[in-house]
Amino acid sequence: MGSIAASEPTGLKDDVLLVVVPFPEDEKWMAKLRAQHPGLEVRWATQPPTFEIDPLPKETYDGVTLLCALGPHPAEMLQKVRFVQLLSAGADKWVGSELYKKPEVTFCTTNGAHAPQIAEWVIGTWLMMNHHFIEYAEEQKKAKTTRLLHLNVYDSPGLRMGVLGYGAIGRQCARLAQALGMEVYAYTRSEKPTPESRKDDSYCVPGTGDPDGVIPTKWFHGASREAVNEFLAQDLDILVLSLPLTESTKYILGREQFDILSKKKTFVSNIARGEHIDTDALLDALREGKIRGAALDVTDPEPLPDNHPLFTAPNIFITSHVSWQTPKLFPRIQDVAERNLMSLSKGEPLINVMNREHHY
Amino acid sequence: MGSIAASEPTGLKDDVLLVVVPFPEDEKWMAKLRAQHPGLEVRWATQPPTFEIDPLPKETYDGVTLLCALGPHPAEMLQKVRFVQLLSAGADKWVGSELYKKPEVTFCTTNGAHAPQIAEWVIGTWLMMNHHFIEYAEEQKKAKTTRLLHLNVYDSPGLRMGVLGYGAIGRQCARLAQALGMEVYAYTRSEKPTPESRKDDSYCVPGTGDPDGVIPTKWFHGASREAVNEFLAQDLDILVLSLPLTESTKYILGREQFDILSKKKTFVSNIARGEHIDTDALLDALREGKIRGAALDVTDPEPLPDNHPLFTAPNIFITSHVSWQTPKLFPRIQDVAERNLMSLSKGEPLINVMNREHHY
Repeated sequence: MGSIAASEPTGLKDDVLLVVVPFPEDEKWMAKLRAQHPGLEVRWATQPPTFEIDPLPKETYDGVTLLCALGPHPAEMLQKVRFVQLLSAGADKWVGSELYKKPEVTFCTTNGAHAPQIAEWVIGTWLMMNHHFIEYAEEQKKAKTTRLLHLNVYDSPGLRMGVLGYGAIGRQCARLAQALGMEVYAYTRSEKPTPESRKDDSYCVPGTGDPDGVIPTKWFHGASREAVNEFLAQDLDILVLSLPLTESTKYILGREQFDILSKKKTFVSNIARGEHIDTDALLDALREGKIRGAALDVTDPEPLPDNHPLFTAPNIFITSHVSWQTPKLFPRIQDVAERNLMSLSKGEPLINVMNREHHY
Repeated sequence: MGSIAASEPTGLKDDVLLVVVPFPEDEKWMAKLRAQHPGLEVRWATQPPTFEIDPLPKETYDGVTLLCALGPHPAEMLQKVRFVQLLSAGADKWVGSELYKKPEVTFCTTNGAHAPQIAEWVIGTWLMMNHHFIEYAEEQKKAKTTRLLHLNVYDSPGLRMGVLGYGAIGRQCARLAQALGMEVYAYTRSEKPTPESRKDDSYCVPGTGDPDGVIPTKWFHGASREAVNEFLAQDLDILVLSLPLTESTKYILGREQFDILSKKKTFVSNIARGEHIDTDALLDALREGKIRGAALDVTDPEPLPDNHPLFTAPNIFITSHVSWQTPKLFPRIQDVAERNLMSLSKGEPLINVMNREHHY
């Protein structure tokens, strides 16, 4: 993700910022922004954390030039908007929106703000399933000691993680995998042949991630099915899907891919988007033991209808798009937004600027 | 743990090695040892993984000079033994044994062989409890989507881990904590004032641990209750007990200590020995919310009797001394034993030599 210079280095004195977030009004932060940018009007609306937003009253939108929001608000109400700070790491939910189609509107993601907790979800579920913690919890409930000895517990040193989409989340997964003693292979859309090209200048929580791109021992790239298949054939013990959803990544894992993964019975962890995986192919792969297991924070369809067979498939752990959760998320989003507003005001390069071609 | 030179650099041609392990006979390894040490007699017995061993037939013990075992075998049957390779990281179960009392017998632990999987148990349970995975698993069982939003999920960047006992297991916990974005404080019995003193030359699985002792940002030490209390008062988010059980570490956490930990509601993870913690004090600390939670792989008493109140205490996860499990454990133990037999044969320094004063 590159950085661009803001078009108007004239301060934010005539701007109106609308913050629409699933958090209660933060008076202190609003006061801070007003102090940093004299003249800036700051409005706040609290909405549930869904991408299908309910439009706000007309007067809330009036005159807004800067928007901080999760899902797409009506473009016709936001004619003056020049900057959108998203709450998410990708923009796939915005692709159809008229506001998103305007090239003069700068979109920035909060890429990086979700990385620590989502990587914890990936590694936490990986450890939990490898160490059979849920079965132990069941035993604990019975309030008697039955010493379960699992011969198939296995630990991570010497194993290999494949990270499909080496962005902020993938990089923190890699950092944790490396600490566990694993080797990491990375896959990116575009080629990363040089140390410089492997760097990531997006937002990074201090002490986390792999901003310099030095953890993977092998890099793969491409946009074709063949390139992906070659990556999947690398004897991966765990495959992490941490790539954005685009037309070319939709159903990137189907029957053909699960057949390739069956060689190593690769564990699959998806914290990106449900539509990356052909659900029927996944179900068969789990039932036939082609893969060791799966952890899904996203599904297709989402939410899963009651009694959907995924719920009871063997060796699967499912949550419903919750891995982004942490009370520290909003402070991090505020940090990104604050930096970008300051850069916008000074005409300096922004961080996490959206690439309109790739939608991330 | 220091290294000593073996007393008899004369090869193992007149030696008899008895391997008593909870694993089936490994013909390939026995053949390898015999090839490495012509004349060495190798015997094998498979026993369950308990410290209370059943004595083997007299003829199995006859003439044994080298022993590889978990629990103490009868000293009167093992008069010629000069070297014992333990399967455990500590020797507390051997303290009363006559064999252990003989200063001329060299004891080596398999310290380090258990570190990756036990550290995974510590970090895996920490992530599982912070991210409420067990509650999600309960929801999944109902086969319907109820989008649990946990406002008290919290991720690790910026948090602080205290490691009480900075040996092989504690070092790998520290490595994982650091990768999660945490700060680590270490506590050791003896002072570690220099970079050299912070190193650990015991067995280390490649790609894991902190053999150079560079991860902790602050070091504490001492054998007194006051020194321990000062460490516990350092605003720790998680305290890992990874110290050996000795007379001075028995019940190292009691009421006074839980009161100190209540300032930060420190999460307590114990993978060392149950007798490190006063169970009644822990129960009260959990019930009164003095600590955020606890993960115990060891308990006092152990095994826990049916319906023991620990099973149902709030915010607790219990397993029954299983965190050492991995199919890779025995290959690692074999690696340590093999190295030590080779060093013994060549009269070179051994690794993981037991300190008979500290029993680790």
